Amino acid sequence: MPALYSFALCPDSRFIQLILGELGVDYEVEETKPWVWDEALAALNPAGTLPVIVDMAEKPLCGSYAISEYLAEVTPALKSLRPQMELLYGDAAQRGEIRRVTEWFLVKFHKDTSSLLLDEILLKNLSGGGEPDMETLRTGRENLTYHLSYMTHLLQQQPWLAGEQVSMADLAAAAQLSCLDYISHIRWKDIPEVKEWYSRLKSRPSFRPMLAARVGGNPPPSYYTDLDF
Amino acid sequence: MPALYSFALCPDSRFIQLILGELGVDYEVEETKPWVWDEALAALNPAGTLPVIVDMAEKPLCGSYAISEYLAEVTPALKSLRPQMELLYGDAAQRGEIRRVTEWFLVKFHKDTSSLLLDEILLKNLSGGGEPDMETLRTGRENLTYHLSYMTHLLQQQPWLAGEQVSMADLAAAAQLSCLDYISHIRWKDIPEVKEWYSRLKSRPSFRPMLAARVGGNPPPSYYTDLDF
Repeated sequence: MPALYSFALCPDSRFIQLILGELGVDYEVEETKPWVWDEALAALNPAGTLPVIVDMAEKPLCGSYAISEYLAEVTPALKSLRPQMELLYGDAAQRGEIRRVTEWFLVKFHKDTSSLLLDEILLKNLSGGGEPDMETLRTGRENLTYHLSYMTHLLQQQPWLAGEQVSMADLAAAAQLSCLDYISHIRWKDIPEVKEWYSRLKSRPSFRPMLAARVGGNPPPSYYTDLDF
Repeated sequence: MPALYSFALCPDSRFIQLILGELGVDYEVEETKPWVWDEALAALNPAGTLPVIVDMAEKPLCGSYAISEYLAEVTPALKSLRPQMELLYGDAAQRGEIRRVTEWFLVKFHKDTSSLLLDEILLKNLSGGGEPDMETLRTGRENLTYHLSYMTHLLQQQPWLAGEQVSMADLAAAAQLSCLDYISHIRWKDIPEVKEWYSRLKSRPSFRPMLAARVGGNPPPSYYTDLDF
């Protein structure tokens, strides 16, 4: 069975977990602490980063880009599992739009906001790295407001972030937002379009393992797993 | 004809220029200053980032991920131009390796070293942003040494960074290194394997437009365009 090296509050790990869940692929989780240098992980992925998936292709697949594209390519072979599911759909231009929005969340959103907030609030706490830096928190929160406005703009035009069907882009965005929701940083009442979109995603079976995961000593807010939040 | 919004010393722009050159696709260059907010660019790409390519697909293609995968997908349609060229080759596992190494250079190398050095040395100069920060320069240079060691390690095992044939991964890496070479930050004599690899790439026709580009008031070192450097 494939094994996914991941961390419960790593947005890239969550992105891949969601894709695997949508495709109906069974896998084991190798929970990994990203703030500790891990020789076993580095032997699989020289970058030392998550996620990594082994026992799926001939070699370990490393990083959200390689894994997500691999899973999109092998989807036809998996059609017997979930015949209706195609997360990178449409013609080349539509696929370009899905990849544009996916990169927005995996790279830009992550750099601008979730990596700042998760590092300061969660990873510093878990690794004994001291108090959060207030200036970094303020930057991350300001950037979050801008990104949520852009999501609202997209969702006012179409039901999903990159078009008429759910795609990798929605899973990339939900992976980021779910981590920030875990640390109580999403004010849902201020963003009704985003809340309605997230509500649709949250009720999908692929979200259940992700929402059930906990990081010791850092519980999420009470509404975190509620489908009516 | 397709138009590529790019900046001469943006590694992501260079990556796409090299792919277009390898595939033999004609295009026009829309030279763009990344340190100036550009309404026309933002109308094409809400992220406001480079590269963007218009008049190729039905919609603008934004960002190195979407553009490179688009070009890899349409390569079969371009086969009449360069029948021998496939930059994302092999089975799904081999393609996973090409994407792993591509992401290494586009994201990790860029974040660890080239964005630091290019921002401090070049963009601050061009935008009137003051003197380079010495601590940031030192970090970028230390990280560069580490990344060059990893390249040496890969090239001691195989002729190209992700296998037996030239691939997107080599172009992603060369795009980064060529920018740092422009600002005199590659000590070629210390890295013979990397130098030999870069020498093979530098003589390819796809490199000519990139090596000919200049940024006003900031000339490259004399050996920058030499094939024997």
